[in-house]
Amino acid sequence: MRRCTSSWAGRLERVVNHPASEPRLASDDPLALSGVHGLADLDPRTFRAAAHRVADLMADYLESVEDYPVFPAIEPGSIRPLFPATPPEGPTAIAEILADYEALIPPNATHWQHPGFLAYFGTTASGPGILGEMLTAALGQNPMLWRTSPIGTELEGVVVDWLRQGLGLPSAFDGLLTDSASTSTMIALAAAREAAGLDAAAEGLAGRPDLAGGVRVYASAEAHSSIEKACMTLGLGRASLGKIPVNSRFELEPTALAAAISADRSAGRVPLAIVATIGTTSSTSIDPVAEIAEIAGREGLWLHVDAAYAGAVALLPARRAPFSGWELADSIVVNPHKWLFTPLDASLLLTRRMELLRAAFSLQPEYLRTLDRQAPVRDYSEYQPQLGRRFRALKLWILLRTFGLEGLRARIDHHLALAAGFAEWVDADPDWERLAPVPFSTVCFRFRPAARARRPADPAVDSSLDQLNAAIMAGVNRSGEVFLSHTRLAGRFTIRLAVGNLRTEERHVARAWALLRSEAARLGAA
Amino acid sequence: MRRCTSSWAGRLERVVNHPASEPRLASDDPLALSGVHGLADLDPRTFRAAAHRVADLMADYLESVEDYPVFPAIEPGSIRPLFPATPPEGPTAIAEILADYEALIPPNATHWQHPGFLAYFGTTASGPGILGEMLTAALGQNPMLWRTSPIGTELEGVVVDWLRQGLGLPSAFDGLLTDSASTSTMIALAAAREAAGLDAAAEGLAGRPDLAGGVRVYASAEAHSSIEKACMTLGLGRASLGKIPVNSRFELEPTALAAAISADRSAGRVPLAIVATIGTTSSTSIDPVAEIAEIAGREGLWLHVDAAYAGAVALLPARRAPFSGWELADSIVVNPHKWLFTPLDASLLLTRRMELLRAAFSLQPEYLRTLDRQAPVRDYSEYQPQLGRRFRALKLWILLRTFGLEGLRARIDHHLALAAGFAEWVDADPDWERLAPVPFSTVCFRFRPAARARRPADPAVDSSLDQLNAAIMAGVNRSGEVFLSHTRLAGRFTIRLAVGNLRTEERHVARAWALLRSEAARLGAA
Repeated sequence: MRRCTSSWAGRLERVVNHPASEPRLASDDPLALSGVHGLADLDPRTFRAAAHRVADLMADYLESVEDYPVFPAIEPGSIRPLFPATPPEGPTAIAEILADYEALIPPNATHWQHPGFLAYFGTTASGPGILGEMLTAALGQNPMLWRTSPIGTELEGVVVDWLRQGLGLPSAFDGLLTDSASTSTMIALAAAREAAGLDAAAEGLAGRPDLAGGVRVYASAEAHSSIEKACMTLGLGRASLGKIPVNSRFELEPTALAAAISADRSAGRVPLAIVATIGTTSSTSIDPVAEIAEIAGREGLWLHVDAAYAGAVALLPARRAPFSGWELADSIVVNPHKWLFTPLDASLLLTRRMELLRAAFSLQPEYLRTLDRQAPVRDYSEYQPQLGRRFRALKLWILLRTFGLEGLRARIDHHLALAAGFAEWVDADPDWERLAPVPFSTVCFRFRPAARARRPADPAVDSSLDQLNAAIMAGVNRSGEVFLSHTRLAGRFTIRLAVGNLRTEERHVARAWALLRSEAARLGAA
Repeated sequence: MRRCTSSWAGRLERVVNHPASEPRLASDDPLALSGVHGLADLDPRTFRAAAHRVADLMADYLESVEDYPVFPAIEPGSIRPLFPATPPEGPTAIAEILADYEALIPPNATHWQHPGFLAYFGTTASGPGILGEMLTAALGQNPMLWRTSPIGTELEGVVVDWLRQGLGLPSAFDGLLTDSASTSTMIALAAAREAAGLDAAAEGLAGRPDLAGGVRVYASAEAHSSIEKACMTLGLGRASLGKIPVNSRFELEPTALAAAISADRSAGRVPLAIVATIGTTSSTSIDPVAEIAEIAGREGLWLHVDAAYAGAVALLPARRAPFSGWELADSIVVNPHKWLFTPLDASLLLTRRMELLRAAFSLQPEYLRTLDRQAPVRDYSEYQPQLGRRFRALKLWILLRTFGLEGLRARIDHHLALAAGFAEWVDADPDWERLAPVPFSTVCFRFRPAARARRPADPAVDSSLDQLNAAIMAGVNRSGEVFLSHTRLAGRFTIRLAVGNLRTEERHVARAWALLRSEAARLGAA
């Protein structure tokens, strides 16, 4: 199972000591040192040969990723000493660097591409997405302005609209691609500040009598940490986030939300925005978006929908029920780099109110002004906190065309089915219990031997079950065959199994189940 | 000069109409449609063949980039209609997508990789950096936590420290890699809020009696727009930014800074931070960092140094005079994706006060907690606004080893020499004038016929010179051979020529000079 790393220790000393790069290669080998001489880039022959060598390394990796343990059996701090403490003064031949790459990099990676990666939200850097990243790197575009990348700018408009249509959202939604859901949500909340008439971009939040009572943002107690972090970044503060209680299915309680807004208004606080989640990170629960949208409309608050993970499911018209009401949102985030098989990074931020994003982030210094074009120009950097931008549209264009919407739907549907199957196994086994509904591809569960389950609830029992389940998960992860992560639901340690990798087949999910049961039997008996 | 795009129009109709992908290829061609069937990723044989095909496309592009006009002769809105308005339902063969790529993408790009790209700050996605991006894409790492990418986390520590040493900064500086200088500066100012004891991450800025007079950040009037944008994002507001006047060399006036801080304190405002710039965007002027550091120290303010562009020059020990005092800063940003030949994105944020970045951005929900490791773990997402992170260290490791510090120094030195040579040509010609010193690789200048220069200053003359120079620049850019951008210095329209591309040779800079003179002669005579 484990990939042989025998070459690693042998290479180690040489790597650590940065020896002068000896000409280990025939002088006509383009990957030898001669390729980096001069004052320019790698010579073209060297680059071409190196790119082909790397293409094979990439293909080899993807073909053999299952031979690695998903998570390496190493301790923090064990990797850094494998590299020299001081930077290299002289050049090193590409051939040597790539040999070191093979010895040092993949053996110390957490293999998100591994079909047994069932932790967090499994993601895949798919083949078409990787091809897109290759071309993106070579083209060196920076679509901060139309002028600095016309194709980067206009193709972004194309794929944003393709995705919008695929997700079944109305044409009133425009948007852009950002690096992460954290950034997308932060942009949405910055726009909410402007929508509330605070003129925060210009005036800030400090020293304002109109905000003497403070400001408020609302999300469920199960909402993602990125919302709280956005509040920190934006100067709203963690204290501004009203965490609304959830029901037994971990869904936001609309009545509690309405009550919180009302109480805050009475206390002189200024509500700004509500974040509803479709597919929370712990349990993938679904907030009642339509009801929340009604409250947001009545209260005049910005509604942002976090569907970073689950949004991909909206590509399937038959599976759109959980998304009911999201078309009423002011903004929505769906991450192609989560469950749409796109390499990091690509987050889609859709909004009906693009002009408010611009109000929150637009600045046009002279040195960025475009002088010689008459038509109205979209400069995407006016809509986000960063100036520089990657050409993320290219990989999405390649990916959407390679698979087509049909191909994406079939793959997502397959993941939904794999998770449903796993949930059935859990449900059918009296020694295990499911701890949340499974609306998407993530199953929350724990080991709870039937003998214990028959006893009345007892905190001491729950605490020992927590320890037992943490030990089961750790044991399963040590196998290297699969990788699971955990959360805490209603106070209980909860194992999560999330399907999102294109290489995951039923046999991997079945293997996870077998490992869980055998580890539970071993530990439960001990 | 212009690449033939005859195939483009021919392909257009087919591309726009998303026809069912006909089997144009022999069925045993791995790039045919069969490679995308099933529920998994591209089949391995298809991916390998496609990666090799793309490797050739990349190498072909880099070898022929000079055949393209640097900036395409197109108008805004002309590209989007070339793509279908609706998303593809079915799959398309990779071979067909790559053919469309060739027809549609590079012809509509601004060619940052072109040796004639002398606008903004020229950058290069170098060969070693591109190889790094390829491997990064295939590996699919997300070093948000140590656990989610041990190698991504620890190699980041290695290359951050290599760069620190290369730049000649003391070991008290730790740091991380972010996406952009905008983000790095925003992180620094968020940390400054915590350093000032505001507890802004927890409490926010609104409704606080202690901030009743408002807050203040200082930077020169020539500082980059990213500082103002960070103030907008962080809830400080544009109004919080004190823009300090500059001297005739466009350098911040320390006496004016000290006076502004004093006046603000008297008015009850709370100063937080000073941003000094080494290499401003308009003229690459150098603020007197040592003097500013003294003020910052005396006033107890966070000092952030923006050396996003010019920081690369600090790799050359003989050229470190402009950096004097930056070792006293609390934080420094240097962008490897600007003048260190790294593909977008890679911004290096160094700081002496890593714990304050953590105070500004740390959140640890249960689902991100690492349970089974005892050693202290660095989770880089605790130090930045985003959770998800790209594995940016890999490309820097490959790049630093390929060129070595010596190779990087030689290339940067070459760019400094090219710019110095161009400045000499400008200085030697009585019909042209330089509008700022040239401490790095950027020259600011304008056409000013000797006949006019002899007359006393006259606003009307300056205004007509503005129009003339804008027309000269537009004419030169229309040639497609070089690409220049502009700024405004002391109210005057200023043409900028910035050398930063690894392919730029003396002949390109000379050609820019020849084009400028011939366009000036043509327009000046008209």
